[in-house]
Amino acid sequence: MQETVKIALDAMGGDNAPGEMVKGAVEAVNARENIQVFLVGKKEAIEASLSDYTYPKDRLTVTEASEVITTEEAPVMAIRRKKDSSIVVGQTMVKRGEADAFISAGSTGAILVGGQLVVGRIRGVERPPLATLIPTVKGVALLVDSGANVDARSSHLLQFAKMGSIYMEHVIGIKKPRVAIVNVGVEEEKGNALVKETFPLLKECQEIHFTGSIEAREIPHGGADVIVAEGFTGNVILKLYEGLGSALIGKIKGGMMSTFRSKMGALLVKPALKETLKEFDATEYGGAPMLGLNGLVVKTHGNASAKEVKNTIFQCVTFKEQKINEKIKELFTEKPENK
Amino acid sequence: MQETVKIALDAMGGDNAPGEMVKGAVEAVNARENIQVFLVGKKEAIEASLSDYTYPKDRLTVTEASEVITTEEAPVMAIRRKKDSSIVVGQTMVKRGEADAFISAGSTGAILVGGQLVVGRIRGVERPPLATLIPTVKGVALLVDSGANVDARSSHLLQFAKMGSIYMEHVIGIKKPRVAIVNVGVEEEKGNALVKETFPLLKECQEIHFTGSIEAREIPHGGADVIVAEGFTGNVILKLYEGLGSALIGKIKGGMMSTFRSKMGALLVKPALKETLKEFDATEYGGAPMLGLNGLVVKTHGNASAKEVKNTIFQCVTFKEQKINEKIKELFTEKPENK
Repeated sequence: MQETVKIALDAMGGDNAPGEMVKGAVEAVNARENIQVFLVGKKEAIEASLSDYTYPKDRLTVTEASEVITTEEAPVMAIRRKKDSSIVVGQTMVKRGEADAFISAGSTGAILVGGQLVVGRIRGVERPPLATLIPTVKGVALLVDSGANVDARSSHLLQFAKMGSIYMEHVIGIKKPRVAIVNVGVEEEKGNALVKETFPLLKECQEIHFTGSIEAREIPHGGADVIVAEGFTGNVILKLYEGLGSALIGKIKGGMMSTFRSKMGALLVKPALKETLKEFDATEYGGAPMLGLNGLVVKTHGNASAKEVKNTIFQCVTFKEQKINEKIKELFTEKPENK
Repeated sequence: MQETVKIALDAMGGDNAPGEMVKGAVEAVNARENIQVFLVGKKEAIEASLSDYTYPKDRLTVTEASEVITTEEAPVMAIRRKKDSSIVVGQTMVKRGEADAFISAGSTGAILVGGQLVVGRIRGVERPPLATLIPTVKGVALLVDSGANVDARSSHLLQFAKMGSIYMEHVIGIKKPRVAIVNVGVEEEKGNALVKETFPLLKECQEIHFTGSIEAREIPHGGADVIVAEGFTGNVILKLYEGLGSALIGKIKGGMMSTFRSKMGALLVKPALKETLKEFDATEYGGAPMLGLNGLVVKTHGNASAKEVKNTIFQCVTFKEQKINEKIKELFTEKPENK
């Protein structure tokens, strides 16, 4: 028999809460029997949403949390003060082992701070990064760190590379994932001080398949599977991905509507184009896990739909089943010298 | 009478040299009477290209340079050793005042190093940045620094902002350009150490119209006119712009060709779409000037066409006519305290 995976879901986070959160949870428990979801947040609002659906009552329940942390609040202060917020209550469940994973579409800052302060790091992990799947023309790549740690050091980047490799291999299923570091050129002498310091560490690392530097130009073309970046750079990459994608698609739609002739063409092109652009839509790939914690914390998009919530729940199941945290622990445990 | 603007053009640089370089120069001198171009490089090859065209012989001449610096060579070494290369010869003409500007599609590294070592900085300018125009849905924005200085400091970024503002206002013609710094959030407490140190300097600066932080997501949507970034970050932005644009357009073309119906539509949509995408094509906007030098040095794309070369020559004319360097000099000259 399959082991049940227990998910604490922040029902109050994001633009579409609680409606889409609840819907996503219902769809997940209805789709698979080994999932248990705790909807964390204001009981009344959640139950009102839940009343629309049919679902197994024993595997989808409400856990009361009276407060909500907004995206406007300073993260550290919010985590410290709002002890009965959906983020703190949900992350505490993970800390205590009552849940395997916590998912939220709420304040990224608060989720990251809570991940460190409430859930806590795996021993040996210096800075838990946020790992985000980004679309490429060949499939997906994992951008790690996509913004949890600005001003990270070379030892942190080495850990990002190792944890990212494990995730890409065992959750996404890419054997021997190609690891590359974001740089301003591919020649070995290129880079800023941080990249120059990190490069040899990655090159010597036995646990990863390091392929060298990657220029940002090659990321969308699928030049690597694990894209290692310091958090500031990673965040710029992630956000430019979103912004440039939406700007270009807007331009193209505008262009198609500019003449009578092109409008006719647009009608014919639309279905095929929609299918193609879906492959380049980041929301298809679930949320971004924070790697290296004593439990799993996943951030989904602020505008997450029920579909994304459901996919993220499935992603947590794979994470648990593939024993990702056990693998990370093994990696960072000092091994006795046998030589 | 208009003053003649003298341009030293690297005829040997880039993928399409000397053909497209020569063609662009011919078109420029034929279009405007106040332009003089020196084609710098191997006489024989340049003259073979030139023989195809009719042009005013007194305003388009060849300056011999027997060596070529390739993109594979280490820039500092190449500039020091290849004294008779088209880059060193052309930049020396600027240094001596024999030319107002030097344009090259060759090795970016060598052009930047030569700019500093051969042409030299304006007194007071600490680090000359590369300023690249990038397309947005509203027009263009100036990305400064797009890669000349990695690990730049806050005082450098402040200078980038000032020089970028002058360029945007007087060459591109945007009154009171909005200056923003690339950041991971728009709240004032957000950022890495460099941004946190630079932010107050920009805020207090009287010579620019600072609007605060900009997230990378907003750059393609036209959120600012002058985008201030440290060179590593700026280079990542520039290259991701190129890579994501080409990846998405490739995807869209593929999508349009996927079904019979969509192929028919593609034929109708194509002309309008081509026009729209041209607006998002960086090569339409000429080259990237290195700001803050004693003379003008402009880098064009490695695959620059005659059209881009011609546009870049016109851009140099505007730069001279608008007295950009005089304005920069004025900015960095210590003013006697009058208070």
